[in-house]
Amino acid sequence: MLKKAYLNDKPDKETLKARLKEQADLLFVNQNRIKEKHLPVVVLVEGWGTAGKGTLIGKVINNIDPRFYKVATFDMPTELEKRYPFLYRYFEALPEAGKFRFYNTGWMNEVVMSRLNGTMSDSEYEKTIDSIRRFERQLTDNGYLVLKFFMHISKDEQKKRIENLDKDIDTKWRISDGDIWQNKHYKKCEDIFEKYLEDTDNSAAPWYIVDAKSEKWTLLQVFERMNEGIDIALQNSSLAVPLLQNTFPLQKMPKLSEVSLEGKELTDEEYKEKLDELQARLSDLHNRLYRKRVPLIIAYEGWDAAGKGGNIKRIAEALDPRGYEVHPIASPEPHEKSRHYLWRFWTRLPKDGHVAIFDRTWYGRVMVERIEGFCSENDWKRAYNEINEFEKELDNWGAVIIKFWVQIDKDTQLARFTDRQNTPEKQWKITDEDWRNREKWDVYEEAIDEMIAKTSTKFAPWYILESVDKKYARVKALQIIIDALEKKLK
Amino acid sequence: MLKKAYLNDKPDKETLKARLKEQADLLFVNQNRIKEKHLPVVVLVEGWGTAGKGTLIGKVINNIDPRFYKVATFDMPTELEKRYPFLYRYFEALPEAGKFRFYNTGWMNEVVMSRLNGTMSDSEYEKTIDSIRRFERQLTDNGYLVLKFFMHISKDEQKKRIENLDKDIDTKWRISDGDIWQNKHYKKCEDIFEKYLEDTDNSAAPWYIVDAKSEKWTLLQVFERMNEGIDIALQNSSLAVPLLQNTFPLQKMPKLSEVSLEGKELTDEEYKEKLDELQARLSDLHNRLYRKRVPLIIAYEGWDAAGKGGNIKRIAEALDPRGYEVHPIASPEPHEKSRHYLWRFWTRLPKDGHVAIFDRTWYGRVMVERIEGFCSENDWKRAYNEINEFEKELDNWGAVIIKFWVQIDKDTQLARFTDRQNTPEKQWKITDEDWRNREKWDVYEEAIDEMIAKTSTKFAPWYILESVDKKYARVKALQIIIDALEKKLK
Repeated sequence: MLKKAYLNDKPDKETLKARLKEQADLLFVNQNRIKEKHLPVVVLVEGWGTAGKGTLIGKVINNIDPRFYKVATFDMPTELEKRYPFLYRYFEALPEAGKFRFYNTGWMNEVVMSRLNGTMSDSEYEKTIDSIRRFERQLTDNGYLVLKFFMHISKDEQKKRIENLDKDIDTKWRISDGDIWQNKHYKKCEDIFEKYLEDTDNSAAPWYIVDAKSEKWTLLQVFERMNEGIDIALQNSSLAVPLLQNTFPLQKMPKLSEVSLEGKELTDEEYKEKLDELQARLSDLHNRLYRKRVPLIIAYEGWDAAGKGGNIKRIAEALDPRGYEVHPIASPEPHEKSRHYLWRFWTRLPKDGHVAIFDRTWYGRVMVERIEGFCSENDWKRAYNEINEFEKELDNWGAVIIKFWVQIDKDTQLARFTDRQNTPEKQWKITDEDWRNREKWDVYEEAIDEMIAKTSTKFAPWYILESVDKKYARVKALQIIIDALEKKLK
Repeated sequence: MLKKAYLNDKPDKETLKARLKEQADLLFVNQNRIKEKHLPVVVLVEGWGTAGKGTLIGKVINNIDPRFYKVATFDMPTELEKRYPFLYRYFEALPEAGKFRFYNTGWMNEVVMSRLNGTMSDSEYEKTIDSIRRFERQLTDNGYLVLKFFMHISKDEQKKRIENLDKDIDTKWRISDGDIWQNKHYKKCEDIFEKYLEDTDNSAAPWYIVDAKSEKWTLLQVFERMNEGIDIALQNSSLAVPLLQNTFPLQKMPKLSEVSLEGKELTDEEYKEKLDELQARLSDLHNRLYRKRVPLIIAYEGWDAAGKGGNIKRIAEALDPRGYEVHPIASPEPHEKSRHYLWRFWTRLPKDGHVAIFDRTWYGRVMVERIEGFCSENDWKRAYNEINEFEKELDNWGAVIIKFWVQIDKDTQLARFTDRQNTPEKQWKITDEDWRNREKWDVYEEAIDEMIAKTSTKFAPWYILESVDKKYARVKALQIIIDALEKKLK
């Protein structure tokens, strides 16, 4: 792929100047089109040391209104950053709709550096490449324009630049040990770069190999790609994206109507005894989890008034408050809405060794957003796959993922709604919306059945908690969490 | 990827039976939906020797109406097949809309066998993988469902099968030398298979690794994937597909309005002299082309009455009739229309060493089909990229590709139309449609400018033939062809 850089013909000086002017003007127009059409643009700039990545970004942003862009600079991850999934910090940095985000090196740099310093095994590399492919595809599928530039210079050119920088006291500091090392091991680096570029080249977010020998010519290449990319992305922005076949093996799950709720109950004594025992065990496991740095993610979904809150409370009671967080999920805030719909969950992930409990989750995409029309049909249909991929990332990271559906029947819900309505101190718990949702029970049930059928992967299974008797559901939830943790920690 | 096979849980005998029945019924329903919705389905079956590829296909088609499917069996290419581009025979075998085509091994087998017997170098392999990725993406982008199965068995299982077949005189013949070799070099094969599977796994046409240990379980896995795939493809069938960024470097070309037609003329004497000389040289080059087995593809597009026919005639006169073919391209026949729009051009490619001259071409997609609305806006916008990819295949194959735009101005066209109308023996050459097209000159010109700007790659450049003086255009065409051939053959 690196050879591609030299396939572009550098124009003569006059033409270069004219085309640069033309492209700069076009970019100026395009930033407004981006803003208007709410297109988010990711610009990833990677390349050889001394190729001029920073300089390039500086020149490009000179042509963009400062309100419309941000630059994120990434180094190798810190100890803290290493405690999150690989993609966490790149996901977190995603631009809002209508804005540019420049990544002054990004996920490529992290991977190739880890390869070069020998800290990433072959199998880890393969896994990471899969993650990156899915990440970039999810971005483009969700309407992001992803522009990937690799700034290429030859070994000789790099050597010359290092020598020139070295001559002057004012520029000497700009040479890093890494640059010198790269130049010494140019061939080795080139092989690793080349492989990465090939492994992650894809038609929706292709690599552009920039011939970075001269600054103006570099800028022109990048301008032209950016303007072309924006043009195409704007044409695509109204299109629905094809659904993908699922590639994760799924477990067969019952439909909700097939789940028997009868006899799923405990006496008060049974409950108290079990609760004490299980909470003690969970508490102990939490310590081991912490020591072994295993992240735990518990996702709660369920009917209104099914008893999610009380269930979560019994789990939380067993946990050290310094090591867990409960995230109640309501409708997204504007800054969340203007990003990938999984962004607000990615950014709420726990550090390793910690627990995150989600009271309602990313599954809102295929339930409330589907039913209320908050996203397009294509969006929610695509989401099954995207969610499986998201959970696969968590699995790759080493997380234990447990998803609960808290199940009651329609009569039980009615009884609890009525009780809430009639009990002054519970009235805040019941709203008109709950009643409206209740009327849509059947469409919800259909959506839930589809959701459970399509997202019950081995690495992130759904569990049904029969919760007509809340005590039973609580004990069952504790038991499932304990079993999963014991399996992981043994 | 091969590990994935064992991630699917084989159900118990009873469940297996029930699910098989359910899936077979569903497939029966689905074949009619396919027919109705004109969905073409490619089913590629690859896998280990003795894994049961043929048996599987036999069992699947038992559940499909014979009018709806065909099975294509591919071996390593014959000497004749090797004279066409790699993808030629696979493209040729594509199913019509509404039908299944089973590939009893296909392009994977050809590649991995070439790797195993050492006839394909690393760089050739990389190129071929690129071709395959583009091929499969073009299929899914153009509404094909592409299902790819790899039937996986372990080394021990394969050994056992070979031994069992060997015991019986009636089945002994079914063991090939290849099967025995594979089993002896199982690890080596596995590495090559694994790499290929990873290199060609993509989200729109993912690989399904089938655990092929037992026949019924194999069939169930395939049924389930097929039904799921059909379901998704039918949901996608009404969607437009995102446009892609172009990744082939383009040459800057003038707009038609910037092409000066003045002074582009020859006297009769100049013409005669040049024509004789150039035709003789071309004739000579045709022989060398033939000996060196270089394919030559000449594409003619141009305004009505621009002089395409006469121009082609002067080229053809210089060629040995056994070594060239002229393809006049009219609107597609029904059997052509029901396949990928490039199918009728793929299947008209010359053998190597031969010449194909296309009088109108695949560029109809972005001219007449665009302007008359014979395809969707998304279709023609996507086509620039697809056409560049098609021509890249021809380039990889070693072809010389020359594309001529035969240019005249509007007044010249009027004069020639009028002359045709007024000259009895020329009247067949002019139709009402020509006059109607003339009225659309401006929209055509816009489309042509865009076409030339977006498809002038280095490997398949456009040349403008100024043809107010037809003699000039003929001599220029000859000269361009000669230059290109001399460059290639030197």
